[in-house]
Amino acid sequence: MRAADPLHVQLLRLLRDEGPASRAELGDRLQMPRPRLLTELERLVGLGLVAEAGLAASRGGRRSTLVELNPDLRFAAVDLGASSIDVEVVNGRLEPVAAYAEVADIRSGPKVILHRVNDLLHKARVDGAYERLNGVGVGVPGPVSFRDGLPVSPPIMPGWDRYPVRELLSREHGCPAVVDNDVNIMAIGERHGGVAHSVDDFLFIKIGTGIGCGIYLSGDVYRGTDGCAGDIGHIQADAGGPTCSCGNTGCLEAVFSGAALAREAGVAARTGTSPALAERLAERGAVSARDVAEAAIEGDVVCIQLIRDGGRRVGQVLAGLVSFTNPSMIVIGGGLAHLGHILLAEIRSVVYRRSLPLATGNLPVVLSELGPRAGVAGAAVLASDVAFGEAS
Amino acid sequence: MRAADPLHVQLLRLLRDEGPASRAELGDRLQMPRPRLLTELERLVGLGLVAEAGLAASRGGRRSTLVELNPDLRFAAVDLGASSIDVEVVNGRLEPVAAYAEVADIRSGPKVILHRVNDLLHKARVDGAYERLNGVGVGVPGPVSFRDGLPVSPPIMPGWDRYPVRELLSREHGCPAVVDNDVNIMAIGERHGGVAHSVDDFLFIKIGTGIGCGIYLSGDVYRGTDGCAGDIGHIQADAGGPTCSCGNTGCLEAVFSGAALAREAGVAARTGTSPALAERLAERGAVSARDVAEAAIEGDVVCIQLIRDGGRRVGQVLAGLVSFTNPSMIVIGGGLAHLGHILLAEIRSVVYRRSLPLATGNLPVVLSELGPRAGVAGAAVLASDVAFGEAS
Repeated sequence: MRAADPLHVQLLRLLRDEGPASRAELGDRLQMPRPRLLTELERLVGLGLVAEAGLAASRGGRRSTLVELNPDLRFAAVDLGASSIDVEVVNGRLEPVAAYAEVADIRSGPKVILHRVNDLLHKARVDGAYERLNGVGVGVPGPVSFRDGLPVSPPIMPGWDRYPVRELLSREHGCPAVVDNDVNIMAIGERHGGVAHSVDDFLFIKIGTGIGCGIYLSGDVYRGTDGCAGDIGHIQADAGGPTCSCGNTGCLEAVFSGAALAREAGVAARTGTSPALAERLAERGAVSARDVAEAAIEGDVVCIQLIRDGGRRVGQVLAGLVSFTNPSMIVIGGGLAHLGHILLAEIRSVVYRRSLPLATGNLPVVLSELGPRAGVAGAAVLASDVAFGEAS
Repeated sequence: MRAADPLHVQLLRLLRDEGPASRAELGDRLQMPRPRLLTELERLVGLGLVAEAGLAASRGGRRSTLVELNPDLRFAAVDLGASSIDVEVVNGRLEPVAAYAEVADIRSGPKVILHRVNDLLHKARVDGAYERLNGVGVGVPGPVSFRDGLPVSPPIMPGWDRYPVRELLSREHGCPAVVDNDVNIMAIGERHGGVAHSVDDFLFIKIGTGIGCGIYLSGDVYRGTDGCAGDIGHIQADAGGPTCSCGNTGCLEAVFSGAALAREAGVAARTGTSPALAERLAERGAVSARDVAEAAIEGDVVCIQLIRDGGRRVGQVLAGLVSFTNPSMIVIGGGLAHLGHILLAEIRSVVYRRSLPLATGNLPVVLSELGPRAGVAGAAVLASDVAFGEAS
């Protein structure tokens, strides 16, 4: 994808990622002859994508004029979770101009959910966040045909199968739109503005309600033949483990995920093996993965053990994937990343012990930097990429 | 790699893969303006890479002249195994002109083995297979830094770590050389002239003395950060399994590979649970994986079960990799591929049952077409690619 980029996409990305620049700087960075650059810039000014940005700071001699992305550019970034909608409107530099979040059940179906998204974006316009949108990027919690811009057989999204998400959003907002899997957009976010900045080969492991993996290889997201690459939640982690919602036994997701951890926390609370969880259950009538995290920080031994057991399972599956892909970095994100360093330490320990030494000799295993914003950050990158790509 | 190809590499590859062509055909296929094409062809004729090939068959009107790769082009393809050296000299179309094979222990070290390779190539020249070589491609049974052209920490190749294989071969034969992992060259061979012809995303699983995986993603070999991607032999297949040579327990390679199968065959022969193996042991004093294959074909129940058990283990690991990469095809090759359809049936059964239905809905799991020639075939492709790339 990158090698084939036309020069105008490279130019727009440079202004997006590094801000205002002089024509001389742009020519150097893009190794583009000056006449061609000037023609290209003129065309992009005409399209309303680029604008003059005043004079550069003087460094002796004549001060050069800068160009920048049009300050009126706006992209919508949408991260649809199993039970949440996050929307940001960002400017050309991908800085948030407005942000909205609400609780919503993805199982309500595409009509209800996309109606909510459009309402939020309408509200953003009324609030003055934009006059018109230049691109919309959306992440959904399931497999996506990236080429077709629609979900494909998404297990937890009844009613969404092959629903024309991209087409409808594009028509509604009069701009290009792009749809991707939620884990992919998180990986894209971390690579653009997070801990994996400019790392070409890395795995982003999302541990939340479910478990998934975003795959960056040779500088690009790898999505697989049907768009379902990275579905590691159903890799077998424990041959003798519990039955998974998919019908197989011992899937990673059935052994360790937000849902699995809440189930085990419930047992530990009811049987009283964990006093901390028992107390929380008595207080609130239910315990969740977040309670396990809190109790572990307070030193509750059972909760620490639950997290370590989970980390070991994740580590076992990851060790295999490290031997297979030999990545430069592993990033752990998603809702359960707040289990933090106990989880990370256990994952590291298993990965470093079980993978080939050559593959782990220089392999950082780190927590997501963007946290809950990773998804919208990546959706914004995709929205701008598609808008830049279609600007011709 | 492909998107960035200069046009002359595309032109040479086209003549290599599809044979003589008229200038008009080449211009069409490469979408190259005629003046530029003619200049480029003239340059390549001057470099001795391209030659006139007479007149095309008449299709009415003036008969056009054809161009082809210079008939004197020669590439050396070398496949170094744990205990074998295979060498082919091929012409520009990658058709074998001469082939040599001999038994050799890779543990003899690089000086001894490369001396043998050079002896064989010298013999090929004396035999009239070539006057000069245009490129050399070599596969070795261990991790390789592709960029540096040398093995890196190869477990079964003592003395080879960081030995400058590419540099020495290049100097010896006065032409470009390229070094890659043995499984990668097999995958390259199958993609160029085998069952994976022009498939962009596939996994090539080599099951031999050890187990490894060649990874094709988005039309290119994926080698990983340190060149050791695809090292699936040490993914855990059985938590309660035997200790592996790497020190961990239950690695796929320790549970099922040529060595593991020979060990289990020995037990079945000595205890007499397999009459067919006991008979072979009595006759020859030893039993191997090949005996298991033969006895299975004769209907020996224990041997069939050994192969099925192995297939199940391979399938379990593969199921995870299918969920992870969502490939278009899986190719099974290597020395144990002769275990054939019993093995294949078991691998298929586990992969289809354990992976996500979306990823397996249209996923062929097939045997290698090139068999033992896959390695040299891929080495020849690499040798020509590097020679074409440096022809400027």
